[in-house]
Amino acid sequence: MEPYRFDRSEALFARAKKVIPGGIYGHQSPRLLAMGSYPSFFARGEGSHVWDVDGNEYIDYMCSYGPIVLGHRHPRVEEAARRQAEQGNCFNTPTALWVELAEYLVEITPFADWTVFAKNGSDVCTWATMVARHFTGRRKIVAAAGAYHGTHAWVSPVPNGVTPEDRANVLNFRYNDLEGLTRLVEEHRGAIAGVMLTPFRHDAAHDSELPAEGFLPGVRKLCDDHGIVFILDDVRAGFRLHMGGSGELFGVRPDLSCYCKAIANGYPLAAATGRGNLKRAALEVFFTGSYFTSAVPMAAALACLQELKQSGGIEKMRRTGEMLRDGMLSQARSHGFEVTYSGPPAMPYMTFKADGGKWDRITAFCAYAATHGIFFHPRHNWFLSAAHSEQDLRHTLDVTDAAFKVVRKQFDA
Amino acid sequence: MEPYRFDRSEALFARAKKVIPGGIYGHQSPRLLAMGSYPSFFARGEGSHVWDVDGNEYIDYMCSYGPIVLGHRHPRVEEAARRQAEQGNCFNTPTALWVELAEYLVEITPFADWTVFAKNGSDVCTWATMVARHFTGRRKIVAAAGAYHGTHAWVSPVPNGVTPEDRANVLNFRYNDLEGLTRLVEEHRGAIAGVMLTPFRHDAAHDSELPAEGFLPGVRKLCDDHGIVFILDDVRAGFRLHMGGSGELFGVRPDLSCYCKAIANGYPLAAATGRGNLKRAALEVFFTGSYFTSAVPMAAALACLQELKQSGGIEKMRRTGEMLRDGMLSQARSHGFEVTYSGPPAMPYMTFKADGGKWDRITAFCAYAATHGIFFHPRHNWFLSAAHSEQDLRHTLDVTDAAFKVVRKQFDA
Repeated sequence: MEPYRFDRSEALFARAKKVIPGGIYGHQSPRLLAMGSYPSFFARGEGSHVWDVDGNEYIDYMCSYGPIVLGHRHPRVEEAARRQAEQGNCFNTPTALWVELAEYLVEITPFADWTVFAKNGSDVCTWATMVARHFTGRRKIVAAAGAYHGTHAWVSPVPNGVTPEDRANVLNFRYNDLEGLTRLVEEHRGAIAGVMLTPFRHDAAHDSELPAEGFLPGVRKLCDDHGIVFILDDVRAGFRLHMGGSGELFGVRPDLSCYCKAIANGYPLAAATGRGNLKRAALEVFFTGSYFTSAVPMAAALACLQELKQSGGIEKMRRTGEMLRDGMLSQARSHGFEVTYSGPPAMPYMTFKADGGKWDRITAFCAYAATHGIFFHPRHNWFLSAAHSEQDLRHTLDVTDAAFKVVRKQFDA
Repeated sequence: MEPYRFDRSEALFARAKKVIPGGIYGHQSPRLLAMGSYPSFFARGEGSHVWDVDGNEYIDYMCSYGPIVLGHRHPRVEEAARRQAEQGNCFNTPTALWVELAEYLVEITPFADWTVFAKNGSDVCTWATMVARHFTGRRKIVAAAGAYHGTHAWVSPVPNGVTPEDRANVLNFRYNDLEGLTRLVEEHRGAIAGVMLTPFRHDAAHDSELPAEGFLPGVRKLCDDHGIVFILDDVRAGFRLHMGGSGELFGVRPDLSCYCKAIANGYPLAAATGRGNLKRAALEVFFTGSYFTSAVPMAAALACLQELKQSGGIEKMRRTGEMLRDGMLSQARSHGFEVTYSGPPAMPYMTFKADGGKWDRITAFCAYAATHGIFFHPRHNWFLSAAHSEQDLRHTLDVTDAAFKVVRKQFDA
């Protein structure tokens, strides 16, 4: 098979650069991939497959960086969204779906008594820090160094435009270092409002790390002992690992949990759920947006979550994720590569040990895969969806086998 | 006609309060209206009309607080959104619409060379301050006291959860006080990165103020003289007053302009446009979100803006807005009320002088109107859409005439 060409993508990207900074900015920027080996623009999606503007077809292992959890254009979600759109979407108040979806989220989330809705992961993560501050009357927020909790100035991974004051109340420790966190809490006794953590460490351009034995329960106890609000940033992992929030998988229940991404299979919605003792503080922190109450994404979310639950989507993603992992690890061995395949099966990431903390081999690997119809990312964890089939997996493993071979030839001949 | 009842709204609201802080939070909260005289939940919209969950019908003068500019479910917008949804919405990269919409915004905006997209007004306003800081290497942002530029901590109208550090770099002056602003700029010479202003003063619970003669051009000159980035917050007014940005109506061209609300007739999209000299800084400030590149809202935006332009929607809103204003002012006089009817015709707001800075009469007025099918707001400017017809206006004025009569009876008998 001839590798894909990207003529239309490139022509569009040239136009984009004229009228948009960088052509495409943010995490969807092709600069983060392998320029020349990836499409810059998509045209269509259906299930686990996507088509770019040149007509190239891919099995999609990025799932729009998380949102697509049932597969593109899932019939049940599309039908619910379409029916709501026929009535209207954006009104002066919410629709009944506002209540129905909140009730459903509270029902499936063991620790939660209430829910709020917004549009971005950044919205809910930053708002959660404000709720923790208002509730405790304290200023400091602790987060793991290098963790991504959105683009706002207190935590943006890029320092441009950020002032020292924006980060004056943010403290960092190393994910999984309970001792370090304990020291920090002792040093700032009575000053820490909240600890924000992802359920596992999934920083970009870094092997993922599952929470160490006892780490998350240790954080829970530390927060309880010191009156600190434990905020789980479940924006990326939420509804891919457990219907009750990813904390359930790792044996911990936070005070506040932040969701976005997979909640509505690509329809724009973010949410946070919280314990009853924080409900008043949650109301008293101002939180609003032009489209926060819109009905179509809520119809999509309710359909998405119910389908995910009824069809055993979480279990299915784990199973196909394990097939992918087992297949690729076996191929890596047979091609003589040491690789680190990290993260939960439904959200894996792979690096080559010989890359030594750089990304040369994984970039070549992903570039080969992309130009042959398999969409991975060289510096960001991948995503399974419930639409990925065994046939998808078999075809994927055919391509990855060839990709390992190409990397072997290119780097270690 | 019997006044409307809200039994289903109230039953739903009772359920909402159990699982959502305050039942409904933010600017869509019924606590900001006249409790008991307004619906809390809507079910359907069509053109200038909306129906609540009790089946009550309204002529909608709030337009979802701005987004609905062509009327609910405008056929051209719905058709464009539906066709895109059939291909997919949320991918790993944008679609061609990302480029087409950016090109269109640059084409219709006289000062703009580039565009970025996001989801909330808060997203683009806060990001604009970061671009100004990165571009100038300075920290301070100047905004008018009491102005609403979103919910983020630097400017949220509610101080809960906000730290002093969040506002350490924010300076305020009084809108329209060019002398005061000039003094501030002199005092903080070389420290001010950006000035952010709305095109006219439209603070909630306050009479609107059009920019005084020479104010906005004076701000422009001051910014030029001191190397300050002039940011226009056109989130609320954008595409209701002028297709080229509301600055065009008032004779000023900013460096950066922030849009949301009316840009896509209710589909979730925000945007900022800027001058070429800021393009590099715009790229270097990190800006991204799960749904920033989604295609359906961009299809809706392109259809919305083209329809608005081709059908002369701006002029139509001005004309029907003038009819509403002239009718209501004449009614107020004939009922012996002194009222202040402020703001541009398409975004009016009314207060009763006898309320003396409180809202007793206007709340009673709006409550009567709401329970008789006319949706106004007692503490927030109203919005015309291009779907409001002369027949709507005539019916509206019948109801407002009765509303004035009721207020006369209730307060000054």
